[in-house]
Amino acid sequence: MFDRLCSRLIISNRFKLVKHFRFYSEEKVNTVVSAIQPTGPVHLGNYFGAIKIWLDLQNDPSRQCIFNIADLHSITLPHDPISLKNNIITLAATLLASGIDAEKCTFFQQSRIYHHTQLTWILLSLLSFGRLSHLPQYKEKSTNLKEIPLTLLLYPVLQASDIILYKGNEVPVGNDQLPHLHVARDLVEKFNRIYGFVFPEPKPLMSDDAFACKVRSLRKPEKKMSKSEATPKGRIDITDPPEVIRERIMKAVTDCHSNISYDFDGRPGVSNLISIHKLCSGLSIDQICSEARSLTTEQYKSMLADLVIEYFKPIRFKYLDLLKNVDYISAILNKGSTKAEMIAENTMSQVNSRIGLIPYK
Amino acid sequence: MFDRLCSRLIISNRFKLVKHFRFYSEEKVNTVVSAIQPTGPVHLGNYFGAIKIWLDLQNDPSRQCIFNIADLHSITLPHDPISLKNNIITLAATLLASGIDAEKCTFFQQSRIYHHTQLTWILLSLLSFGRLSHLPQYKEKSTNLKEIPLTLLLYPVLQASDIILYKGNEVPVGNDQLPHLHVARDLVEKFNRIYGFVFPEPKPLMSDDAFACKVRSLRKPEKKMSKSEATPKGRIDITDPPEVIRERIMKAVTDCHSNISYDFDGRPGVSNLISIHKLCSGLSIDQICSEARSLTTEQYKSMLADLVIEYFKPIRFKYLDLLKNVDYISAILNKGSTKAEMIAENTMSQVNSRIGLIPYK
Repeated sequence: MFDRLCSRLIISNRFKLVKHFRFYSEEKVNTVVSAIQPTGPVHLGNYFGAIKIWLDLQNDPSRQCIFNIADLHSITLPHDPISLKNNIITLAATLLASGIDAEKCTFFQQSRIYHHTQLTWILLSLLSFGRLSHLPQYKEKSTNLKEIPLTLLLYPVLQASDIILYKGNEVPVGNDQLPHLHVARDLVEKFNRIYGFVFPEPKPLMSDDAFACKVRSLRKPEKKMSKSEATPKGRIDITDPPEVIRERIMKAVTDCHSNISYDFDGRPGVSNLISIHKLCSGLSIDQICSEARSLTTEQYKSMLADLVIEYFKPIRFKYLDLLKNVDYISAILNKGSTKAEMIAENTMSQVNSRIGLIPYK
Repeated sequence: MFDRLCSRLIISNRFKLVKHFRFYSEEKVNTVVSAIQPTGPVHLGNYFGAIKIWLDLQNDPSRQCIFNIADLHSITLPHDPISLKNNIITLAATLLASGIDAEKCTFFQQSRIYHHTQLTWILLSLLSFGRLSHLPQYKEKSTNLKEIPLTLLLYPVLQASDIILYKGNEVPVGNDQLPHLHVARDLVEKFNRIYGFVFPEPKPLMSDDAFACKVRSLRKPEKKMSKSEATPKGRIDITDPPEVIRERIMKAVTDCHSNISYDFDGRPGVSNLISIHKLCSGLSIDQICSEARSLTTEQYKSMLADLVIEYFKPIRFKYLDLLKNVDYISAILNKGSTKAEMIAENTMSQVNSRIGLIPYK
C-alpha cells in the first residue's frame, strides 16, 4: 500500500483486522483507505498483492473504500513529468480494466484534493524530525542519496493525512509499511488528545493468505517480482501482449529437476510458477501438482502461459479500449474527485474548527 | 514580514528594490506579497513597521498587493485554538480599521487557500533538510525546545509558497528575514530550471527610512517593542483605550536629564519617544526637539500622549465598530479568498501541468 505499487499485500477474501478497533465500533460501515503510486505498468505481483485486494474490498458491503492514485508520493524523489502524466493515465486505465468500479468506491487522483497537503501541514506541527528520521524506509532510501529531498523524510505524514482525511479505520498494509501506519496512529492519538476526538484510529488490514505477496521474479526467483529489476524479463505486466507473457514464462528460471513440485525455498523457480498458477486458477497447490504430474517443465510452462494469458485477456482488452478514450478516464477521475472532496471538506471543516482556523463560528 | 507581527520593516514611501529584478521587467505591475501572523494585538512597532507599509503599497498604482493573515504560520508552535480564533478576527479588524482596503488589494486568511500547502509539498521535493536546519531563526527558536515540531523547520518553505503562489516579485522584509527569502529564491531558481519558467524571482523590498523598525519598549528602551516582553507596560497596542496609552507614555523610562534631545544610543528612552513622535506627526527630529525646548520631560510626555491618542483614535473607533459585526469582517475575508484563489488556481494549474500532475492534456 502506498509504496511503489507494492506486491507486499496478501490476497484473501477473509481480511482480519490486526487489533479490534475501538473508535468506530458504533458505525456500521468501516472505511478502508488505500493508494497506489503511478510508477509504471502493473505486474503480476502488484495485481495479486494490491489490485485484487481492492476488488475484494470494494465488493464488501460492510466497507466503504477510498482508493487513490498517489501521484503526490511519486514526486517524493526526482521524476520525469512526461512519464508521470502517462503513468497516471495508464494506472487509472489498468485499475478500471481490472474491475475497480467508481460507483462502488471513491476512486480519484490524490493531487486533485489539496486537503491532503493542508492536513499534512497541520500534522507536521505535531511531529518531530527524530520520529521520522528513524523510520527504516527513510534510512534505507536515503542511504545512497547525496541530497535527500525533504519529501522523502515527510511522506509518511502525507500518508497519514491520506488515511485520516477520510477517517479511514482500515488500511491494507504489508509488514514493511507498519512503521508508517504507527506514525499515523500516533498522530491520530496526539491530535485527538490535544484538540478533541476527530479521527478514528487507523488499523492495519492484513490477510492470512500467504501467496499473493510472494510472486517472485521469473529470472531471479529468490527475489520478489519488481519493476526495479534491471531486466523486464523477470516480470509479467498484466497488460503485456500474449506473446510477451508466453516468452517470459517459457524462459522462466527453474531448476534441473523435470517434475513439478512445490518447495518454496528449495525449488523457488518452479514454486513461483505454481504460486502464479494458484493465483490465476484458484486451485490448491496439491491439485496443481497432481494435475501436472505427467507434464515436463516445458509442457507445464506452456499450459501456465495459456492460463495467465487467458486470465488477463479481458483486462488487457478493456485496458487498450479505455486508453482510446482518455476523456472517459478523466471524467471518472473527476467524478471521484468530487466524491472525495466532499468527505475531505467535511473533515477539514472539523479540523479547522478544532485548531482555531475558523474564526467566525 | 511573516514572522510574528514584525516591527523590523522600515516605513517609507520610497521603497527601493535591493537588486534590479530580471524576470518581470516587461510587466507594468509588480506583485507585492506580505503576511502578518495573528498572534495578538498590534502594537506601535507592528503598526509603523508593517501595517503602514501595507497602506503605502496598496495605494501605489504600479503594484498589486497580496496581503494575508498568516494563520498557518501561527500553528508552527503549540497554540491555543480559542486565542487563535480571536486573534484572526481582531487582526482582520485592526487591519481594516487601519485602512487596508479589500478593493485595492487582495486581503485574505491564508488557511482558506489550500494551494499554499499544496505548493509547499511540491517545493519540499526540491529542498534538503540541511538547507533549512542551518537557517539562523530555526537554530535560535529550536534551541530551548525538547521536541521540535517539523513545522518550525519547514515554515520558510510555506513562506516561499505564500510568495510564489501569487508570483510575487517584491517582498517587504527585514534583515532577519533575508535568509528565508533566499530559500524562496533558491526554490524559484531550481523549479524554473527543472520544469521551465513559471515563477518570477522574489526580491526583498527595503526602505531607507530607519525609524519605523526602531520603536522600542517603553520600559526597556534598549530592546525593541515586543509582545513577548514579560510586562505589557513596555508597549502600546494601537487599539488600547486612551487612558492606557497615556499611562504607558507617562511611565515610560527616560533618564535623569530633563531636556528633550535625540541620541539613539546615549538617551534611548527619550529618543524612543521622539521616534514615536516623528512617526505620528511626520515632523523632523529637529522640529520636534525645537518645539519641545521649553518643556519638561513630563510635559513632553503628556503632549506626546495626546498626539498618539489622537493619531489612533479613528482606528480604535473603527476597530471597535467592526468587531460588533464579525459577519462583515468574515464577508470581506471571504471575498478576498475568492480573489486569492483565482490567482492561486492559475499558478497551480501551470505548476501541476509542468510537473506532470495533469495527465489529460
